[in-house]
Amino acid sequence: MTELARKFDKDPELEGGVVASSVYFGGRRIADIPIEEAGLWAAKEGHVVWIGLLEPARELLLRVQRQFNLHDLAIEDAEHPHQRPKIEQYGDALFIVARTAQLVQGRVNFGETHMFVGKGYIVSVRHGVSTSYAAVRQHWESCPSALAKGEDFILYAILDFIVDNYMPVLEQIEEEVDLIEDGVLARPMTSKDIERLYMLRRDLLRLRNAAGPLVEVCRRLTSADLPQLRPAMHPLFRDVTDHIRTVLEKVDNLREVLAFAFEASLLVGQSQETAIAKKLASWAAILAVPTALAGIYGMNFAEMPELHFDYGYPTVLVAIATICSILYWRFRKNGWL
Amino acid sequence: MTELARKFDKDPELEGGVVASSVYFGGRRIADIPIEEAGLWAAKEGHVVWIGLLEPARELLLRVQRQFNLHDLAIEDAEHPHQRPKIEQYGDALFIVARTAQLVQGRVNFGETHMFVGKGYIVSVRHGVSTSYAAVRQHWESCPSALAKGEDFILYAILDFIVDNYMPVLEQIEEEVDLIEDGVLARPMTSKDIERLYMLRRDLLRLRNAAGPLVEVCRRLTSADLPQLRPAMHPLFRDVTDHIRTVLEKVDNLREVLAFAFEASLLVGQSQETAIAKKLASWAAILAVPTALAGIYGMNFAEMPELHFDYGYPTVLVAIATICSILYWRFRKNGWL
Amino acid sequence: MTELARKFDKDPELEGGVVASSVYFGGRRIADIPIEEAGLWAAKEGHVVWIGLLEPARELLLRVQRQFNLHDLAIEDAEHPHQRPKIEQYGDALFIVARTAQLVQGRVNFGETHMFVGKGYIVSVRHGVSTSYAAVRQHWESCPSALAKGEDFILYAILDFIVDNYMPVLEQIEEEVDLIEDGVLARPMTSKDIERLYMLRRDLLRLRNAAGPLVEVCRRLTSADLPQLRPAMHPLFRDVTDHIRTVLEKVDNLREVLAFAFEASLLVGQSQETAIAKKLASWAAILAVPTALAGIYGMNFAEMPELHFDYGYPTVLVAIATICSILYWRFRKNGWL
Amino acid sequence: MTELARKFDKDPELEGGVVASSVYFGGRRIADIPIEEAGLWAAKEGHVVWIGLLEPARELLLRVQRQFNLHDLAIEDAEHPHQRPKIEQYGDALFIVARTAQLVQGRVNFGETHMFVGKGYIVSVRHGVSTSYAAVRQHWESCPSALAKGEDFILYAILDFIVDNYMPVLEQIEEEVDLIEDGVLARPMTSKDIERLYMLRRDLLRLRNAAGPLVEVCRRLTSADLPQLRPAMHPLFRDVTDHIRTVLEKVDNLREVLAFAFEASLLVGQSQETAIAKKLASWAAILAVPTALAGIYGMNFAEMPELHFDYGYPTVLVAIATICSILYWRFRKNGWL
Amino acid sequence: MTELARKFDKDPELEGGVVASSVYFGGRRIADIPIEEAGLWAAKEGHVVWIGLLEPARELLLRVQRQFNLHDLAIEDAEHPHQRPKIEQYGDALFIVARTAQLVQGRVNFGETHMFVGKGYIVSVRHGVSTSYAAVRQHWESCPSALAKGEDFILYAILDFIVDNYMPVLEQIEEEVDLIEDGVLARPMTSKDIERLYMLRRDLLRLRNAAGPLVEVCRRLTSADLPQLRPAMHPLFRDVTDHIRTVLEKVDNLREVLAFAFEASLLVGQSQETAIAKKLASWAAILAVPTALAGIYGMNFAEMPELHFDYGYPTVLVAIATICSILYWRFRKNGWL
Repeated sequence: MTELARKFDKDPELEGGVVASSVYFGGRRIADIPIEEAGLWAAKEGHVVWIGLLEPARELLLRVQRQFNLHDLAIEDAEHPHQRPKIEQYGDALFIVARTAQLVQGRVNFGETHMFVGKGYIVSVRHGVSTSYAAVRQHWESCPSALAKGEDFILYAILDFIVDNYMPVLEQIEEEVDLIEDGVLARPMTSKDIERLYMLRRDLLRLRNAAGPLVEVCRRLTSADLPQLRPAMHPLFRDVTDHIRTVLEKVDNLREVLAFAFEASLLVGQSQETAIAKKLASWAAILAVPTALAGIYGMNFAEMPELHFDYGYPTVLVAIATICSILYWRFRKNGWL
Repeated sequence: MTELARKFDKDPELEGGVVASSVYFGGRRIADIPIEEAGLWAAKEGHVVWIGLLEPARELLLRVQRQFNLHDLAIEDAEHPHQRPKIEQYGDALFIVARTAQLVQGRVNFGETHMFVGKGYIVSVRHGVSTSYAAVRQHWESCPSALAKGEDFILYAILDFIVDNYMPVLEQIEEEVDLIEDGVLARPMTSKDIERLYMLRRDLLRLRNAAGPLVEVCRRLTSADLPQLRPAMHPLFRDVTDHIRTVLEKVDNLREVLAFAFEASLLVGQSQETAIAKKLASWAAILAVPTALAGIYGMNFAEMPELHFDYGYPTVLVAIATICSILYWRFRKNGWL
Repeated sequence: MTELARKFDKDPELEGGVVASSVYFGGRRIADIPIEEAGLWAAKEGHVVWIGLLEPARELLLRVQRQFNLHDLAIEDAEHPHQRPKIEQYGDALFIVARTAQLVQGRVNFGETHMFVGKGYIVSVRHGVSTSYAAVRQHWESCPSALAKGEDFILYAILDFIVDNYMPVLEQIEEEVDLIEDGVLARPMTSKDIERLYMLRRDLLRLRNAAGPLVEVCRRLTSADLPQLRPAMHPLFRDVTDHIRTVLEKVDNLREVLAFAFEASLLVGQSQETAIAKKLASWAAILAVPTALAGIYGMNFAEMPELHFDYGYPTVLVAIATICSILYWRFRKNGWL
Repeated sequence: MTELARKFDKDPELEGGVVASSVYFGGRRIADIPIEEAGLWAAKEGHVVWIGLLEPARELLLRVQRQFNLHDLAIEDAEHPHQRPKIEQYGDALFIVARTAQLVQGRVNFGETHMFVGKGYIVSVRHGVSTSYAAVRQHWESCPSALAKGEDFILYAILDFIVDNYMPVLEQIEEEVDLIEDGVLARPMTSKDIERLYMLRRDLLRLRNAAGPLVEVCRRLTSADLPQLRPAMHPLFRDVTDHIRTVLEKVDNLREVLAFAFEASLLVGQSQETAIAKKLASWAAILAVPTALAGIYGMNFAEMPELHFDYGYPTVLVAIATICSILYWRFRKNGWL
Repeated sequence: MTELARKFDKDPELEGGVVASSVYFGGRRIADIPIEEAGLWAAKEGHVVWIGLLEPARELLLRVQRQFNLHDLAIEDAEHPHQRPKIEQYGDALFIVARTAQLVQGRVNFGETHMFVGKGYIVSVRHGVSTSYAAVRQHWESCPSALAKGEDFILYAILDFIVDNYMPVLEQIEEEVDLIEDGVLARPMTSKDIERLYMLRRDLLRLRNAAGPLVEVCRRLTSADLPQLRPAMHPLFRDVTDHIRTVLEKVDNLREVLAFAFEASLLVGQSQETAIAKKLASWAAILAVPTALAGIYGMNFAEMPELHFDYGYPTVLVAIATICSILYWRFRKNGWL
């Protein structure tokens, strides 16, 4: 679907960074409008203007600003990604920043979505890797609920969509963690395991940074008396908050599990080192026996009676074999070999 | 008992996911009713309808929703497990999510119970592995207390039952931790020990996630002015809160104890490695003596007077034995062997 | 004293679990009464009934309950130890749980004391290992202060006594920690050291669990408007709070010190391993010299001119000795030996 | 630019520690004034006096104090750097301390800026390494916004400039961390890597100390009713707060990443040690074979039949070669070599 | 100065534990008075009595108590050191406990100062190692400020003096930490380094315990409406709070730096162990060559053609030398030697 959405984004009208610019009445799209008419439409009772932008140029943002009389600082923020998730009230408008997470070819990528919400309009600005909100739009246009008639509902729908998109990312990380877990307990980590562990931790850290501050954003959306949001919307935003908390709980669990894995790996590695040391010591001891004995009977003393015994040589061979076997058996018994 | 409860659950009327659907008056069951009459009965003064569902289909949930006019979001949540424990007030009804823990063949399994509580009714929805609340029902039906006449008491009874069921899980983990503790101090961990340690940590983490948010849920049940709960119930819910806190304290203790065990194990492992290194070095030194000496007297110089001494050979043998013995004794003395 | 107290506890009137049951007026004991008269005496102006129980049977608790009209939940709690320290207000009565710590033959043991405090009476229930409060009673009976005339003062006296009894436990742990500290820096830990370290950590953890929640209990005793406590008592309870905080600070310090000791021990162990590795490598190098040289002159080539030199043999011996000495001296110099 | 700024600072009028002392009206500089006239100008409606000092002597601070009636403690603080970032209200004036970070030849250096803000004036005092605020001044003088007409806007501009200057520092650290990351996963750390890691951690710690308390400072600038700040300024200060939070998030991420790097490095190091131990053990085993066999056939027994076999010698050579090859192949196969 | 102060403390009038007992009017000392007159003088408008005690006997404390009607608990506390820093209001008097830190022969020592402050008097009680407050007294007597006329200013002066005295302690620890830092990165820690590290951590822990609770004490001195303190004093106490916060920040930084040092040391140690293992393995391999080759040509087979080659012996010698050289060169190249 990402691919599809992507293709949709690249269509000609997008050239200027505008993904969509429509007026809705009673939940139905009644017109696609140029930016310059947005302010007028938004002012009409019961009408909602939804403008979707993708990495807009400054000039485009200024055109939007003029329509809805947006705050300079918000426009400046919207122009520059790398904001923390936050909610800010500027005059009549709410300005909301959220981070999005996306799987692109098996790696986690992060983007940002900025939203302006005011009486009769919502403007969404996407930065970096993120799915188009076309899916949200389609879903909303087909939504029968009477409640779903305002810009606050669209805000809810987008936030819900963003949070839902964390899930496949988390699930992939979960899978990889499971793989590492299985490996870690079976054998010490290879460089590749360590690298994967390391990368997962970084991704989880970024995911935490993306989702964490959203809790506070949603909390303010539900509790504070923001005139832009109807009280009837509060349960919906509380629901999003719950979803984010679930995401965070999972992230924190995975982080802790990876910390366990690190510790377990250290122990497994230590225990393997010990096992090798034991093996090394055992074989060194066993092999020292023929060396020492043979050394003694290799001396050139004039008088070494054993050398002339009838069965001297085989006796020594047997002695060597016997001692080595006993050692081998003893080491085996107490687990050194 | 789990087995029994399970069997009970599988009885024919359960086919649709309905475990029980009864009306109580003054604490006595007066009728088993179809879902469609539940709303009527609940509205009668002094009557309490208790519906128990097990992994219900969406359609069944919608039927229940119609009876008690439940909120869409709550129904959606109840349909999908994997919620965090929470309490939510939707209009006249409370929606409560709790996680349950169960021992199934020696492994900890987690389930979820969702509850709707409103004037005159309580609906409990079980997901995943969990004991039937038949035991709670029987206990309640035989409960003489005058207080035990409302749906809020049933809510208390179920929560109390859920928390009580954490105990055997904790006790088993405690037992295993004791085993690990004994082992850890006696010898370095084997792979199996490490694995067990690892698994216990994961289980404790999950248990913490299950029980932790319940504290907040219960706190709100006791402090907030929720019209669904009579003030006389507050001490009971505070009591449940205390039980959860005790569970959490135990969980945290066990987690910390396992962390100690990890650290102790690292030290034990290090000290064993050192001991092996000492042993290896000692024996290498001892065995190097005959090798070196014998090597010298194995040289083929034309003039090596010692080779022709009368007691040259035995002298060297004795010298070797003596030096080795001295070394052995010295290593022994300072604890290397 | 523990022994003495214990003996005292075992006296005949204790058979039923009743350690003491007396009425006080103006701070003087005026009568020992049966449980059944306790309610009557407590109701008289200026009289205080103090009942001390030791692991009472359910039946005894119920008799006490009837006298003072105690809450069911509190009675249930008092019957079952393993509560967290807490304070609970049930109707007119306060219910307080505290954990006690005791040294029994050099090991820390934990017990519990439950207290019911209401107008004109105090009931203390001891569980597990703990000192008798006979000492508190004697001290109180001889206390001249006018303030010391109420059941709230007795509550203070018992709490103060409990907290004071943590001190010898802490002091013994402190002593052991000092011993470990001295050891840890001098040499790597033995298994026994590690075990002791481990046990101390567990004891400190338990002590923290025992004392930690008491801070909150005492805070509520000083700040909340509990009708059972005269405002003039607040400084006394604040004083107990300070004592507990001091205990906790000590416990936390010791915990941190043991964590330092663990880390230091790891470093000491690592540095010892390195030292052994250096020693092993040095001796292996030194002893390889005669082996290699002797090996060469032990070869059986037809033409080995050195073998027939006049001073060939002593030259080689000197060469071996010289090289070994140089190596020994070099290793010594850079600290490997 | 730092160099330039520095040069600018060293110009003759700076001799006394005064970098600038000007009066502004409606955002335009109308005069450069001596300190002694500052009080008079500040009192005129619509005029703003901005005095910039660089490590001023006590005597100069006292002259400034007299003009604006500043508090003794603030003057004392301004004289001595090494303050924590803070905001303090003394009578009519605000006293604000912020820490600045600067890259000087690739190393992070920290300085301090103290600011006095009151009706009609702002005094900035720089200590240690920091960029001149000349850039802020020029930017402000060219700022068209009507809002930008007060001393509170200058305060905002300076704080914003300080926070912006953290960014290049952070970016360089980020680059170095990336380098370390790449290294850490490829091979165990060298002493130099460890040192760099160590230094980065210290720098990050200092950066955290510099930026952390600024959050609280800015929060108070936005929320508290400080008469020195117009409410219209609040969004600007909230914006600075967001920037600081972004800085802190980055700092914390880098700190955590370095902690991961440390742990990963420990594992990589352990795994390398194990690899070496395996290699060592393998070669020791392989090389022990010729030594042992040759030793046996080097013995001087009178009767050693193999010695007189026709192909005895080549057979032994082949045997040695074969056994060594098998061992080599086996070790290779299971990854020891 | 410490020495001097100490001498001053030991003068004859101190015998009873009284360091000073004077009346001040308008900031000037007007009389040295016996304890028994203190109450009278304190009651006179504008007069301030300052009594300084050093480890007073119970009897002396009781005499002071009678003069100012102090609370029993405060007197009990003042008699027994080992209190946590705290502030307590007993009736009309404030009771304040602070911990002092002092360098005595290069080691950190801790003491306690207890203060009673009420209308017209201040009593300071010193325990353990601490500097005399004679310096504070002299400074105060020469203080011209009009504000400096009350007992609350003396309280401020003493607290400020105590906090200032933490600084040299911190600076010495900082110096030692710098030394350790330099060492840690250059070479693995010796036992002595580890011990020093360990001791520094303990000292920092104690310093944290001494300074930490003072923040709360000072906060209450500035915010709470304590009748003993004039509002004009608040900025001064806020200033002390800032100083303590700076101390705490430094302490926490040093603690974290030492934690870094520990981790760095572990890595350095590990990397050294690896280096030694590599060296050991390399030399073992090199020295195994002559042993193995010589062993082979030391065998006593009847037919060993090489033994009779013309240049057999020198060829073998050259072969040995060549192989060893090649090995040496290879090990050198990849950094094992």
